[in-house]
Amino acid sequence: MDSGQAPGRIGMRRKVAVLGSTGSVGTSALDVIGRFPERFQVVGLAAGNRIDLLAQQVRAHRPEVVSVRDEAGARALAAELSGQDHRPEILVGQAGACAVASASEVDFVMAAIAGSAGMLSTAAAVEAGKTVGLANKESMVLAGEYLMAKARENGAPILPVDSEHSAIFQCLAGHHLSDVRRLVLTASGGPFRTWEREKIESCTPAEALKHPNWTMGDKITIDSATLMNKGLEVIEARWLFDLPPEQIAIVVHPESVVHSMVEYVDGSVVAQLGTPDMRGPIAYALSWPGPRLPLDLPALDLPALGELRFEEPDGERFPAFTLAYEALRIGGTAPAAVSGADEAGVAAFLQGRIPFPAIAEAIAYALEKHQARTIGSVEDAIDASDEGARLAGGYLAGRFAKD
Amino acid sequence: MDSGQAPGRIGMRRKVAVLGSTGSVGTSALDVIGRFPERFQVVGLAAGNRIDLLAQQVRAHRPEVVSVRDEAGARALAAELSGQDHRPEILVGQAGACAVASASEVDFVMAAIAGSAGMLSTAAAVEAGKTVGLANKESMVLAGEYLMAKARENGAPILPVDSEHSAIFQCLAGHHLSDVRRLVLTASGGPFRTWEREKIESCTPAEALKHPNWTMGDKITIDSATLMNKGLEVIEARWLFDLPPEQIAIVVHPESVVHSMVEYVDGSVVAQLGTPDMRGPIAYALSWPGPRLPLDLPALDLPALGELRFEEPDGERFPAFTLAYEALRIGGTAPAAVSGADEAGVAAFLQGRIPFPAIAEAIAYALEKHQARTIGSVEDAIDASDEGARLAGGYLAGRFAKD
Repeated sequence: MDSGQAPGRIGMRRKVAVLGSTGSVGTSALDVIGRFPERFQVVGLAAGNRIDLLAQQVRAHRPEVVSVRDEAGARALAAELSGQDHRPEILVGQAGACAVASASEVDFVMAAIAGSAGMLSTAAAVEAGKTVGLANKESMVLAGEYLMAKARENGAPILPVDSEHSAIFQCLAGHHLSDVRRLVLTASGGPFRTWEREKIESCTPAEALKHPNWTMGDKITIDSATLMNKGLEVIEARWLFDLPPEQIAIVVHPESVVHSMVEYVDGSVVAQLGTPDMRGPIAYALSWPGPRLPLDLPALDLPALGELRFEEPDGERFPAFTLAYEALRIGGTAPAAVSGADEAGVAAFLQGRIPFPAIAEAIAYALEKHQARTIGSVEDAIDASDEGARLAGGYLAGRFAKD
Repeated sequence: MDSGQAPGRIGMRRKVAVLGSTGSVGTSALDVIGRFPERFQVVGLAAGNRIDLLAQQVRAHRPEVVSVRDEAGARALAAELSGQDHRPEILVGQAGACAVASASEVDFVMAAIAGSAGMLSTAAAVEAGKTVGLANKESMVLAGEYLMAKARENGAPILPVDSEHSAIFQCLAGHHLSDVRRLVLTASGGPFRTWEREKIESCTPAEALKHPNWTMGDKITIDSATLMNKGLEVIEARWLFDLPPEQIAIVVHPESVVHSMVEYVDGSVVAQLGTPDMRGPIAYALSWPGPRLPLDLPALDLPALGELRFEEPDGERFPAFTLAYEALRIGGTAPAAVSGADEAGVAAFLQGRIPFPAIAEAIAYALEKHQARTIGSVEDAIDASDEGARLAGGYLAGRFAKD
């Protein structure tokens, strides 16, 4: 009943590079890795400006190579590490992060640099044929078709590291992809799930930032409130699992315990459940296809929870996710433009410049105005995202200009 | 992401024998098989006394060999089929059913003869190295350890054909058995789930026969009311999946939508869900490890259901299932004795001779008095079951003797 894949390299440690090591996913990944020194060895780290924390990670994990955002960071890190017995090579910038991602000694890259800043290093890992744990969702949203083609060319398995796609990955294991009727992504429904439309229209950023189940960054938390997050995940799923958008559904599930599901052609549904803790999907990606990592997370106690609820998503009150489907139907750069427009809209909302429903309006505007093109490189995708952001920004500036 | 197993014999039809073809599982299996003539060919049938229906099945599926319970049945079937162009070989009795199960042209045996009557032919299929779809749960409850050893010796995959064990089988596919923390069998809770203990004590057979979700035979429906059915399923799971009873849990789930779950060492839980329809698990076993069968069952609509509830099973009001765990701890013939005692208790309750709680009392008595032995043959297991039934019957006769 085991998978046909090799059970990891028995007796050999997986050599891991963590890109975005000082972020939320990066620190969780290092936490997991640190508990299983017989399974993993950290050989590379890449981070931004949190040099203190990065220096701590270097002392704890002793990587061979480290990349930081800029020269000032490199100097600060070198100073922090002076007098240590372990002194890694220190690289700088996107080129540095790409070098860490593609270093010959690396087996597995945890791609956890947030936003489009993480795309080039993710692509570098894919092109170097590494096994990639993908927490940089922008890569798949902006350039999924392109990156999956590169992954196939280079024999680089891309393993999802967010709870929904990890759930689907776990529910597909051991089954035939051609037997899938549809994927069902679960959505918490966000803080406004039960709110009337009028009340949602006048909500504040503070209200939108109160996610019921997960503690996440501001951008993704607002995306949960608009349900755009689920739309972006539909785009990711479309490429990660190579299924058309008609075969990807969304169900609202307020408890966030069922992380997602796969429905097969015989009516059987396989679901993955767990407590909402990112270490679960992180550990699954790190361990795959070998034995799972025995984490000491609290076990899921369904009788204590009592009930799990399910609802249809409401495209009337939450139109943003429907625009993601529309972008997939258009194809090419349209999803990237939608993603950029969403970023601009969320930023404007968080700054108090626009009301909540204007986020979706701005996305719809950008999607309509954007001329979709084929994506031939990561840069093409980033350009389209930037264009989406400009279109959305222009629309919002015009509509909500201060008098 | 597909399993490593061969994707069925492409271009070749699976040659199936259905034992118990006129029963509930047998007719459903033939219904499924009949929809996919390019995948399956019925080469053998075995049935009891429903000769009319069996003759219909012979005309529809044109098997090469058929077995019936006795000579009278054989004559009646021959008469029914006289004048047909297709005339199968007709065999008789246990030897006939065993011959159908082990016929050289058979690839897959659907073992769906109910009760201990089905055990010898199930064993014959296993010893002949057939792929066995196991709907005859007594085989696993009475002689699971013995049969699984025979299955390993003969390279005979045993595939579960009840919803709970099929669920677990589907949730284990593609994962490492050594990664399992526990199996979680779901129980509907039966008709008395919400009843007070005093009310349960005075329930009638008619009340106990009202199962909330499934339409099944009388014996298994009463077993659902006592939760003994779940205890018997724990015993089956213990052998089918080779896990100790401490790693097999029960959760009450009134909607019977989550058919069962597997919890892994990293806290991840994989569950299988579906509408309650036996054709699902039947089709999965028939199709495994090839592509699933696109059944036209109604899709599971979780938003329409609204909620799924979970509760701890209550060993105070429903002590029977705890005795199954106890029997597994004792080992050897103890589970067979418990099963026999339960049969005797359920029969006495259905005849109105004893109150509902006396079923569990009779099982407890038989388990205490039975001297567990090692099982060296199917006959040993049947003997132990008979002994359990005698012990339970004796206890009940003494306690509820008519004055």
